[in-house]
Amino acid sequence: MKIVVAEEAGFCFGVKRALKLVNEYLTKGKQIQTFGPLIHNIPVLNDLAAQGVHSVDSINEIQKSKTLCIRTHGIPRQVEKQLYKKGISTLDATCPLVKKEQKIIEKLDKNKGRIVIIGDKDHPEIVAARSYAKNVTIINSLAEAKALPRAAQMSVVAQTTLNSEFFKHVVAILMDKVEKLEIYNTICQATKDRQLAVKKLAPKVDAILVVGSKISSNTKKLFNIAKEKNKNSLHIETCADLQKPRVLAKIAKFSNVGITAGASCPNNLIEDTLLRVFRLRGISEEEVRKVAGA
Amino acid sequence: MKIVVAEEAGFCFGVKRALKLVNEYLTKGKQIQTFGPLIHNIPVLNDLAAQGVHSVDSINEIQKSKTLCIRTHGIPRQVEKQLYKKGISTLDATCPLVKKEQKIIEKLDKNKGRIVIIGDKDHPEIVAARSYAKNVTIINSLAEAKALPRAAQMSVVAQTTLNSEFFKHVVAILMDKVEKLEIYNTICQATKDRQLAVKKLAPKVDAILVVGSKISSNTKKLFNIAKEKNKNSLHIETCADLQKPRVLAKIAKFSNVGITAGASCPNNLIEDTLLRVFRLRGISEEEVRKVAGA
Repeated sequence: MKIVVAEEAGFCFGVKRALKLVNEYLTKGKQIQTFGPLIHNIPVLNDLAAQGVHSVDSINEIQKSKTLCIRTHGIPRQVEKQLYKKGISTLDATCPLVKKEQKIIEKLDKNKGRIVIIGDKDHPEIVAARSYAKNVTIINSLAEAKALPRAAQMSVVAQTTLNSEFFKHVVAILMDKVEKLEIYNTICQATKDRQLAVKKLAPKVDAILVVGSKISSNTKKLFNIAKEKNKNSLHIETCADLQKPRVLAKIAKFSNVGITAGASCPNNLIEDTLLRVFRLRGISEEEVRKVAGA
Repeated sequence: MKIVVAEEAGFCFGVKRALKLVNEYLTKGKQIQTFGPLIHNIPVLNDLAAQGVHSVDSINEIQKSKTLCIRTHGIPRQVEKQLYKKGISTLDATCPLVKKEQKIIEKLDKNKGRIVIIGDKDHPEIVAARSYAKNVTIINSLAEAKALPRAAQMSVVAQTTLNSEFFKHVVAILMDKVEKLEIYNTICQATKDRQLAVKKLAPKVDAILVVGSKISSNTKKLFNIAKEKNKNSLHIETCADLQKPRVLAKIAKFSNVGITAGASCPNNLIEDTLLRVFRLRGISEEEVRKVAGA
């Protein structure tokens, strides 16, 4: 049996940075709460909870004695103002690439141009990003792009985890209706790299495992790309999912299995998945480490 | 036998306007010379020659007693200045859409942005348009787009007769290498309409005739689109071409023939082609007019 991990997979720069910031705070003995779950990954959240880090969902739940960590997705501008007014101390772990996206939208708003964001209007990143302009149109399908009226000018910004190919299809549609189209390619490099890596890997293996939360936007996109190229694609959240009969049956059948993971999936979960897959096939951890030269 | 003319074909707005301007001048008894052939169409040029309109290829050939007509493609900025300096009176028949393209390039040059023109560097339109900026890069293939270096910002302008689909493919490539991509869709509506019409018509007929000059950029593109959709595509310059054995053989074989024509092809040439095709099939002009209800 052969298991191949995609060239680029797992934790991205923004997530690593957020966890580092939180850990530095914890090391200093400070207490932290996060605004919404820090990342879309249960094992990591459990680990943080064990260190006293808990998540709040609204301003009213915030404990003033603790620092409030703003997660990678950022928060809406008006919420930021409210926090400041209430004197709540914050640790801003907004991904710098998301911050850049927000700054672009803020600048476009000042220029009074027409702004279109391509992404999921309910995703926290977009809920926060859209707040940086008075008027934005959010689209997330080719049909919505086709339905947009003609315009002399339009500026387009993408959710950082958008599928690159989908972005290009939307732009091709908009090119037919806009005289001056300004495209900001705000898809982050980690997203592009992971998508490209799974696109390359999926057709070369018998089956592919996509590790990560079912509510993680970038993981869902990786899974969709994997599915397009390989019908034996499985989305698992934790190693426990590997025990499910349906998953087990699939893994047992194939001799070449690929693995990729979303940006909020820690490396140890990828490793654990690898080891579990081998174990399920009757190969011990020791043997694997021997083969892998670790 | 059925002959279908593409929904949009032949003379575009810019060519019609140029001929109207020249005819108005001639009606007033004024003498005209053109800078390069007024349009890429032999029968029309012969007709103009019969009215004393001749074409010059360089500034030295210009007769100061006659007005110099600048054709739809426009002329380089430095040539315009030379003409002004020499006191040569001009009639500017530059297509307003080409003028708009020049103004965009001029403005981009003032903003010191990176400018890429997609089109044929040897075509008179591009030779003129590029003169409006100190530095431009001209590309005309996907390979050239791929070879461009990464950039933070880039502005893209298209030759007015560019193939829309090709433009989209180039933009998709550039999206991977540019953070802020400004796209000016300067392809003229007549070009888009004619390309779309031939794309729709070509797969529905047994064979398709593309009428227009072999050196006409937009006609060549119509022919390429026709060929993609229908392997029995024929590019003819004049009705005389219909007598060629190869053409005759093809037309005789098919019962459904489509016709389209480049932007510099007058309606009477399209009509003549239609009638000739019918005549070649033994159907008289009278019968055709009866069927067509004319």
